[in-house]
Order: sequence, then C-alpha cells, then structure tokens
Amino acid sequence: MSTQNNTLSSNINLAHQDIISVNQFDTDLLDYLFNRAEEMRHIVETVGGNDWLSHRVLTCLFYEPSTRTSSSFIAAMNRLGGRVIPITQGVQFSSVSKGESLADTIRTLEQYSDVVVLRHDKVGAAQRAADYADIPIINAGDGAGEHPTQALLDLFTIREELGTLDGLRIAMVGDLRYGRTVHSLTKLLLHYDVSLRFVSPELLRLPLTVMNQVIDAGIDVRETHDVADVIDNADVLYMTRIQRERFSDLAQYEEVKGHHELTPELMTQAKEKMTVMHPFPRVGEIHYGIDHDPRAAYFRQIKNGMYIRMALLASVLGK
Amino acid sequence: MSTQNNTLSSNINLAHQDIISVNQFDTDLLDYLFNRAEEMRHIVETVGGNDWLSHRVLTCLFYEPSTRTSSSFIAAMNRLGGRVIPITQGVQFSSVSKGESLADTIRTLEQYSDVVVLRHDKVGAAQRAADYADIPIINAGDGAGEHPTQALLDLFTIREELGTLDGLRIAMVGDLRYGRTVHSLTKLLLHYDVSLRFVSPELLRLPLTVMNQVIDAGIDVRETHDVADVIDNADVLYMTRIQRERFSDLAQYEEVKGHHELTPELMTQAKEKMTVMHPFPRVGEIHYGIDHDPRAAYFRQIKNGMYIRMALLASVLGK
Amino acid sequence: MSTQNNTLSSNINLAHQDIISVNQFDTDLLDYLFNRAEEMRHIVETVGGNDWLSHRVLTCLFYEPSTRTSSSFIAAMNRLGGRVIPITQGVQFSSVSKGESLADTIRTLEQYSDVVVLRHDKVGAAQRAADYADIPIINAGDGAGEHPTQALLDLFTIREELGTLDGLRIAMVGDLRYGRTVHSLTKLLLHYDVSLRFVSPELLRLPLTVMNQVIDAGIDVRETHDVADVIDNADVLYMTRIQRERFSDLAQYEEVKGHHELTPELMTQAKEKMTVMHPFPRVGEIHYGIDHDPRAAYFRQIKNGMYIRMALLASVLGK
Repeated sequence: MSTQNNTLSSNINLAHQDIISVNQFDTDLLDYLFNRAEEMRHIVETVGGNDWLSHRVLTCLFYEPSTRTSSSFIAAMNRLGGRVIPITQGVQFSSVSKGESLADTIRTLEQYSDVVVLRHDKVGAAQRAADYADIPIINAGDGAGEHPTQALLDLFTIREELGTLDGLRIAMVGDLRYGRTVHSLTKLLLHYDVSLRFVSPELLRLPLTVMNQVIDAGIDVRETHDVADVIDNADVLYMTRIQRERFSDLAQYEEVKGHHELTPELMTQAKEKMTVMHPFPRVGEIHYGIDHDPRAAYFRQIKNGMYIRMALLASVLGK
Repeated sequence: MSTQNNTLSSNINLAHQDIISVNQFDTDLLDYLFNRAEEMRHIVETVGGNDWLSHRVLTCLFYEPSTRTSSSFIAAMNRLGGRVIPITQGVQFSSVSKGESLADTIRTLEQYSDVVVLRHDKVGAAQRAADYADIPIINAGDGAGEHPTQALLDLFTIREELGTLDGLRIAMVGDLRYGRTVHSLTKLLLHYDVSLRFVSPELLRLPLTVMNQVIDAGIDVRETHDVADVIDNADVLYMTRIQRERFSDLAQYEEVKGHHELTPELMTQAKEKMTVMHPFPRVGEIHYGIDHDPRAAYFRQIKNGMYIRMALLASVLGK
Repeated sequence: MSTQNNTLSSNINLAHQDIISVNQFDTDLLDYLFNRAEEMRHIVETVGGNDWLSHRVLTCLFYEPSTRTSSSFIAAMNRLGGRVIPITQGVQFSSVSKGESLADTIRTLEQYSDVVVLRHDKVGAAQRAADYADIPIINAGDGAGEHPTQALLDLFTIREELGTLDGLRIAMVGDLRYGRTVHSLTKLLLHYDVSLRFVSPELLRLPLTVMNQVIDAGIDVRETHDVADVIDNADVLYMTRIQRERFSDLAQYEEVKGHHELTPELMTQAKEKMTVMHPFPRVGEIHYGIDHDPRAAYFRQIKNGMYIRMALLASVLGK
C-alpha cells in the first residue's frame, strides 16, 4: 500500500493506511490516536483484551531481531483477538534472507496476512515495502531511518504522565546525533508549544538538519553538555543510551558517561512533578536506585507502547 | 498415524489421515479438496476466518527453515481459529536436533498437538513420523522426496485460473531433474486429459522414471530446450528455479539461463488467456516487468496455498 | 512478584503466586493441583480446550532453548484460550541477551504479559525475576537449580498411573548426582509414605544433602549400583539420562551404561502393575522395544506435563 506523504488527518481515518513516518501525523491525528490508545488501556486494565481483530493475521517480519518491539506488537495483536505469524528470530537463516528480494518476500507474506510489521536494517525499506504491498505496512524501524511507533509512544507517554503536551520544558539527553528516537520525537514535538533542551557530549550533538527544523519552528531551544544544567527546570528528561563505540578516546567516553547518568542525587534537584523516560535498553544512563521513584516513567512508557500499537493495528485494519 | 498407500477417495474422508504423498489423491479426492479450498477462499474474503478449529493445536516442526511454507500453514491454522506451536526457526540449536530420534520427538510433540506439519531434510521422514504418531502428520517437504501440499496448490491454481484441468497444454520450464515440485505436479496431472511440454537444459531433463510414467499414461508429451518453442501454444507456463550449482561449466549456465527467463517480450507471443506460475523463490526466471500482467498468477498461487492448507487441516481434523 | 518461602496451602489459592520451587508445595496444595490437572485432562479429551484465559498473555522467555518444555507451556496456554509471546529460540541473538539485565528484561516483558515462564541458565534466576516482577513468574528451569513443573508432573504421573502415592516403592535410576529432576521429585515424595531405591554408578550417587533429607524423613531407603537389584519389587522405575561427559574413563562409562539400560528382558522381572518413567530426552536408557509395554508411561508423562501446566497457569491467573 503506497502512502501519500501528506498528513492523514483531513478525515482522520487510518483504515488501509501504511504507518511509515512521523511526518504523516499532525495534531488532529495525534489526538485521535492517543484517545484510541487510552481506550485500549481501559480495555486491557478492565478485561485484558477483546475480539475486534479476530480472524485477522499480522505478520511480524523482523530482519533484525528486536525482542522488545516485536513482543510489543505480538502482545498488541493478541490482546485484540488477532493472530500473528512471528518471523522475528533467526530470519538470517531463512530463505527470506537468502537472496530473495524484499519485494517478493513482502508480496508473498501479504497473501497470508492483513497487515505486516517490518523491521529492516536499511533506510527506506518500509516505504519500499509499502510501495509493493496492497495491505498496510507498519514501519518498526528501518535502519538509521525512522521508528515512528516509538516516537508516538514517547509523545503519548508525555501526555499521559503530565496531562498535556503544551507549555512543557523537555530535555533530551545522551546520543542526540545517531539516536533516531530523539530525531523523530523532536519532529512530533514541533507541533506543540514546548521548550527543548538538548544535552549531549560535543561529539554527539543534534544534527544540523534537525536543529534547524527546531529553530525554524520558533521553538525555545538551548544545547548543553551537562544534565545538571537542565534538571531543575525540566518537565521531561528523555534519556538515551550512549554507545562506547562512538568514541575513539575511551577516557573521553568515561568522562562523558558520568555527566549523563541520572542518579538519585541528581533527582533531588528535579521538580516534584516531572517525568523520566528512556527508549531502552539502558546501559548505565539511569541508576537502578530511581526505578521506584514515581517520576520514573520508563516502564509505563513500555506499556504505553502496547496501547499505541493496539490503537494503530485496530485503526489500519478499520476497527 | 500410518497411511495406507491406496488412495483415499473411496469414501472421500480425510479425517484422521496423514498427508504424505500425492499418490494418495485421485480425481474424486482432488475435486473434494479443491471445493473445500474454494469454500476457504470465500470465508477468508468475506470474514477473514472462522472458529472451526478452535482449541485445536498444530505443531509446525521444521528441521529446515522455510518461511514461505511455515507461514502458510501458520496462517491457515490461525484463520480457522486454531493455535500453533511454531518450531520453525533455529531448530538446529534445540534439543530436538541434538541427537533425539525423530520417533521420540514426534511422539513427544503429539502429546501436545492435534496435528503435526513436518519439514525434514531426509527422504521418507514424513512417512516414518506417520508410522510413529497416532495423530495426523502432514508432509511439508521431506528432502528430495515429496512436498505434496505444493503440488496440490499448483493443481488447484491451474483450475482456478483456467476453470478446468482438461484439455490444457502445460509447459514446465527450468530444473526438471531435481525439482520435486515438477515431479509431484506431473504425477497429479496424469489424472487429467492434458498435453505436457518439458523445457530444460540437457543437464536438467526430466528423470527417466517420471518421463516413462507420462508416456505410459498415454499423454501427449514433448521435450525441448527453449521456452520460445512452447510459449505460443501453452495454457500454463510452470517456471522453476535453475540453480547455478548444478553446472560445472558456468558459461553453459549463463547461456541456459537466458533461454529460461520469461520476459515481457516473450509474453507477447503467449496466448491472451494463459497462466504463469512459479513455486518461488525466483532468482531471475521471471522478469519483474510481468508481475502486473494479468496472466502472472504466482502471487495468487501463494494465496491458494493458504486455502489448500486450510482445507487439508480442516479435513484431517474432521471439520 | 515476590514469593514467600513458606508453603502456599493454608488457604489453597495460587492466584497471583510465583511458582519457583517444589518447597512451596505441601500435600494439600498438591492434591488441589492434581485435581485441577485431572479437570484439564477431561477438558482436553472431550473438547480440546476452553476460553478461561482468553485475552491473557503468557511470555515464554527461554534463555536456553528447550523445545519440549516451551512447547508444553505454549500448548497449555493455547488450550485455555490464552495467547503466547514465544521468546524461545535464538534468544542468544537478541538484544535481550546482549547485556540487558534480567531485571530490565523482566520488567519490560511484564508490561505486555499476565504471566512469564522463565528458563535460565543460572541458579536463582527465577527467584530474582520474581523479586522484580509484579506479575507471576513460573520457573521452567534455572540452571542446576530447580525445575518444579517437571517434578510436579512426575508426581502427578505416579498418582495417575498407580492410583495412589502411598505405599509405593520407587526406584530412581541413572545420574542421581547432577539430575535436578531426581532431587526435586525426591523432595516431593518425602510428603508421602514411600520406599526409595537409588540406583547409580558410584560416581553419580545422590548428593549427601538430599540423601540426609531422605534419612531425616524416616523413609525406607537403599542405594545400589544395578537396576537388576531393584526391578522385581519396584512400583515405579524413574529412569534418567547418564551423560558420557561425566566420566573421565570411557571404559567405566560403557560398563555403567549396560547396567542402566532397561530392556524387554529386564522388564520380564518387573511386577505386572508398575510404571516406567523418564524425563526425556533418552539416549539409550530405555530400549525402544518396551515403548508399547503398557507399563511404559513416559509419553503419558509428557502429556501430563501439559495438564499440570494448564492447571498452574489457570491457577496463578485466578481462574
């Protein structure tokens, strides 16, 4: 199914649409999606699930394994009564990866399925799959490209935790250069009246293109190297993983690392009502000692991912 | 469950039967199966599926990964409301493959299951499994042996595309020597009033034994090296993959390859009502330029595979 | 969910409980569980399954592949109408195993799930997972630690085969030193009025700690090297696998092996009403020639595993 690159909100109907990029979403559509996700939360919390998607089949086609994301989609489909073909592990050994073109694989699997969730290592793979397929394709990450459902669940989490998306000061911390979740979330936040603070080592600063989009949108924005500079006023701390491989000088990495670990001590400087998020996995950016702090939202964030994916699956399948 | 090698049609009842070989099927049984497959198509196209096999469990036991075939069975079982234990990836790392006998593995898995679909690398494995098991075994390919559900979906596709199986001229193209799908489909076609054309490089001609069966059946048959010799009169072109490894002389392979690629130019010589099939994956035998030609049936063929497997699963489970 | 190490039977309610160790079970609770397992057998034998756990999600998280155990849990959940996230193959390639802590993995997966079944290579992993999680954790084997559902299905099988657990003479044969199933089953048997016979090569005798527990319980117990010494009076022969790797002297292994193979000839010395069990896989301890002997209970034992797991899943999920 080929996606027009205009946004989808004119008539707010996601039925038969692909979900490829955050660029498809404007505030009306985001509102619609988030309201549906809250409806899903209500269903799960009260009765566990329902049968809206019974006799529908989702194929999870993951060229790269990602247990967190594939499990989230599998749970989402199952809680709506649908079924899953899980091609999520060891795809590297199967005929799918032995030379068959993405076009043929997608056009094969769509014969069995009502929707395909695709994780691929190459930028643009999701859009190409959508061009070939007659059924909806949901992008679950295409290399250095996008991972739109992650950005949607991040934004939804901010709204759920703080009750609004407007008037917030949001700090993003860590690897702002390579982290695609930061870029996608930033794009979505430009729809709202927010202040942005970008905290990273020099080497991992936000790319020019994204920074310029922020500036062009007239957003209040600042960059800094130290999380301590922003923690007292932040409503949201969006932490990300810094990978050691990015640094040629390990001493530099070790120094940088210290400035990006959120500790219980640092948290004493934060506001009483604020929220700490992380796309996971973490490798030391957030001290385990704050897991039980009510402001630590990262596990609720993961659960919100299931609700967002339930909302997307129900919507693209016309329920 | 041990299969008698006589055909099953006397009372046309597949309940509790194994599906091991195309030799089990005569025209009455084929008619029965194809009518059920059409019923399945109707169900899927109108409501997606039903609950005929709810609380039934299928184990997909694939010693060799085959995403296409396993996904087809998983979708088929799910669309009938059944459930699947998917042992389809990485079985090479599991205890199942670490020395345990096929007998013990099958007799273990049948404790949990109502039917087992088995893919194995050794000829005869499916029949051996059926000898051990008390529940139905469906052969999803046993090495160089048979892959009966592929032959059944191929035959069903010809009937669906052309409305009949009688009076047709069917050309099989490519590797006719090692391609088990060609051998099995040929055996099934001997039940009908067809003409057969076999197109292959010298090295990959149909084996003597199969050729003699065709001749003994009194079928109009010819062999040739070039698809151009047969395309104008063919009602069906059944294309197959030619593997480079079969040739010691690569120059010979390159020459042969050219004669077996179906191009848009070649298609201009074909009849207006004819059908192009391929068991997939393709590696150059069919130019992408004809994918949208209405005569290109290979993706519909894949979908028919799901309907045939739904029909088989429902039938052997007595629904 | 953190488990108190006292037994659970005071009010016989497994809802929201973890299943970590056989130490949690006393005779009242065992009776309750076995009666539920018989109820499950009745359901499966009459209608295949039901919908008690519809819209409930089980995550099977297996750090080590174990097709037998994971398939048993997957079948159990499906036959009760529940759904499964199967992280059972290739977990070694996924992000889950790439450095993420067990705590984070468990707290992630519990966002999607109502219960987690965990197989891990480290002793104590299941209890640690239970300490982190808010939902029930079921231990499906934690390295050299416990595998409580195996011991429960073993005990259930003895009751089913012989109609009682009291007054029996039970012989355990093979690797009694490293075999955790023997240790766990032995602990459970101490609740009953049984005689125990331990048959093993010198190198693989029951550990002191377990032996002392048996003696302290006042149980009639003997050790021997040869299965022929015990077969005539045994009501149960519990065979286990002897691994060649345990022996530095291969000649010693070969000699020992002979004394631990149960042959049709040996079976002529056994009582007419007795039962032969094995946790599988077998590698020569039981001759295939006795598979059809009515006293060979090892495949029924595997089926009982599904019933026990259905009973546990329904119970911890409050149905």
